[in-house]
Amino acid sequence: MDPAWALDPEVRHLNHGSFGACPRPVLEAQTRIRAEAERNLMAFYARGLEARLDAAREPLARFLGACPEDLAFVPNASYGASCVLRSLRFEPGDEVLVTHHGYNGVRTALDYVLGRAGARRVVAEVPFPLERPEQVVEAVLACVGPRTRLAVLDWVTSPTALVLPVNDLVAALEERGVDVLIDGAHAPGMVEVDLDRLGAAYFTGNAHKWLCAPKGAAVLHVRRDRQEGIVPLVVSHGYDASLAGRSRFQRLFDWQGTDDPSAFLALPAALDFLGSLLPGGWKELRARNHALAVEAREILCAALGCTPPAPPSLLGSMAAVPLPRHPLLPERPGRRTPLQEALSAQGFEVAVVPFPAAPDYLLRVSAQAYNRREDYEALAAALKELLS
Amino acid sequence: MDPAWALDPEVRHLNHGSFGACPRPVLEAQTRIRAEAERNLMAFYARGLEARLDAAREPLARFLGACPEDLAFVPNASYGASCVLRSLRFEPGDEVLVTHHGYNGVRTALDYVLGRAGARRVVAEVPFPLERPEQVVEAVLACVGPRTRLAVLDWVTSPTALVLPVNDLVAALEERGVDVLIDGAHAPGMVEVDLDRLGAAYFTGNAHKWLCAPKGAAVLHVRRDRQEGIVPLVVSHGYDASLAGRSRFQRLFDWQGTDDPSAFLALPAALDFLGSLLPGGWKELRARNHALAVEAREILCAALGCTPPAPPSLLGSMAAVPLPRHPLLPERPGRRTPLQEALSAQGFEVAVVPFPAAPDYLLRVSAQAYNRREDYEALAAALKELLS
Repeated sequence: MDPAWALDPEVRHLNHGSFGACPRPVLEAQTRIRAEAERNLMAFYARGLEARLDAAREPLARFLGACPEDLAFVPNASYGASCVLRSLRFEPGDEVLVTHHGYNGVRTALDYVLGRAGARRVVAEVPFPLERPEQVVEAVLACVGPRTRLAVLDWVTSPTALVLPVNDLVAALEERGVDVLIDGAHAPGMVEVDLDRLGAAYFTGNAHKWLCAPKGAAVLHVRRDRQEGIVPLVVSHGYDASLAGRSRFQRLFDWQGTDDPSAFLALPAALDFLGSLLPGGWKELRARNHALAVEAREILCAALGCTPPAPPSLLGSMAAVPLPRHPLLPERPGRRTPLQEALSAQGFEVAVVPFPAAPDYLLRVSAQAYNRREDYEALAAALKELLS
Repeated sequence: MDPAWALDPEVRHLNHGSFGACPRPVLEAQTRIRAEAERNLMAFYARGLEARLDAAREPLARFLGACPEDLAFVPNASYGASCVLRSLRFEPGDEVLVTHHGYNGVRTALDYVLGRAGARRVVAEVPFPLERPEQVVEAVLACVGPRTRLAVLDWVTSPTALVLPVNDLVAALEERGVDVLIDGAHAPGMVEVDLDRLGAAYFTGNAHKWLCAPKGAAVLHVRRDRQEGIVPLVVSHGYDASLAGRSRFQRLFDWQGTDDPSAFLALPAALDFLGSLLPGGWKELRARNHALAVEAREILCAALGCTPPAPPSLLGSMAAVPLPRHPLLPERPGRRTPLQEALSAQGFEVAVVPFPAAPDYLLRVSAQAYNRREDYEALAAALKELLS
């Protein structure tokens, strides 16, 4: 393990996707920011914070192909999605379109909002195994109806680790008058993100996952023509027009009560650190991680005797493989399966998720800069042993 | 300046109330927690976090006179108030009672919610100067009507630094069937808090202010019989009943998307640090800070030639004094007045707030463990000079 990573070198960390990992230089930058804040809180919060947020937003916007003015910092993608879902006004009978590959945390937020409004969630059954990206677009469009108000679609699906064809999805849905909220929890740093080209009404993505920012850093992008309708979860001083000189959107999102903004402010350090690991920068890192995820999947499929459930072109830097039915994978899912516990006890951190539902499970692995081919070979050997 | 405080010793920090200040041992505890998290994210978040949150909640609950099961961690009091306001369902014509001493950030959150519902805010005019706590109860009760659904009342008012008689207010309003949300942003650590005795339906308070926890730590208390109706701003996995073994309230609030919980987990270190500064612990510290705030007000009133606007018994560890009209205090309030800027340039951090509205302003000072009488004497001299 490269000592720049703060991870325990005794453990094989194969689940970067769940909580990310933050390199030491970025954590140290964050500690310096916090120390600076504590020297004079009024200077930091009351006089300096907006300019510092702007300075951190600028390189992030460049990285994401967006205007800084359209980006808001939020603590995580669930928060970003909830800002949108709880701002919109749904009427009884309205429909919101999702896929059954969607992230459970956002599905619950949606169910809460729709339940209050008497609106309903419509689930597009995207095939899995999946052969072609067109199958995703077909499955989603088949569910569009006259009451479809919004589609909430994952850029990279959480249980199945598929990169959905979001550009095609947004274009096709926009053409039908349906706004799209892209849950890009895993997107920044894993796939190339160009938000202005994407053109979605709403996008949210984490910085703590594949950008390796400190925990608490994520982004919400709202298209200019939709900003008027969206407020943060904490409406505060910015709701008054008296804070002059910035757009309402910026005023509202930059002032959500006193919090620790050091994760946002350390984000540029994370962009720099990851971007300098390989000669080709971020592009090369993404390609390297993608290639390693594809390789990892081959190793695991060979060990488990299963077929890869999607072509490599539909993967990013994670891969999910189907697990056989086994006593370590119970019919009633708890928080963690005995298989995951057993692997963890042997020093392997992975994700094991029921999909489409227990007793069918997927094993999901990630490939980040600190991972090596031998990590997956060791995992494959342990799996064979445990599931034999 | 005691070196345990991270504050710049060249500055007189007389505005603890706005953003608090976190002592070095607490910041160091937080840094250690973050480092531990980054060693194995799965161990920290997926397997260990709930138990650690419980362990941090326990001493906080004891400090606040509450059951740990009724306490949720939130990043700040504005967030806590918004959880309640955005969970409740208001009908057109419903009324929510506030005072004009209320915190602007929560007032805006309320206006947003009421505006969507067609409900309205009713403002009780609490006298200022104030002579007796009964005047507050009278002013508030005079505004209760058949459509009053909720009262949102500050325990310690932000612009005027008054400790309102919350026990009497809650009792009188409950008797009339009106639920109360106590905005205790400044309460924990400044006044004695006994939430079970208070009996309010909802209470929120910051830990980063007078408990000196790291930024991002605050608490929401919901009375057992009101927990069913309240969800966090980010509804996530806990909305499913499948996370067994905890109440719905706890499940919902403990899982709001991946964030940095180190401020919550460092909170016990802050309770210990502040509680060990004086032989009489927290009680003596509160009494000492209160006495210093009263003394500070006397010094400032003498310098400005004004009368203290409330008896000492209505103060906590902040004090507000009226400022004379002056060119440094403009009729149209910006974010910061020229007076505040001038004081800051001379090394004094204070709060200057328009109240009830510009061109009438109040100067608010705070008294925390690191403040001394001479701080206010120096401020009084600088004020006399600037306003002469």
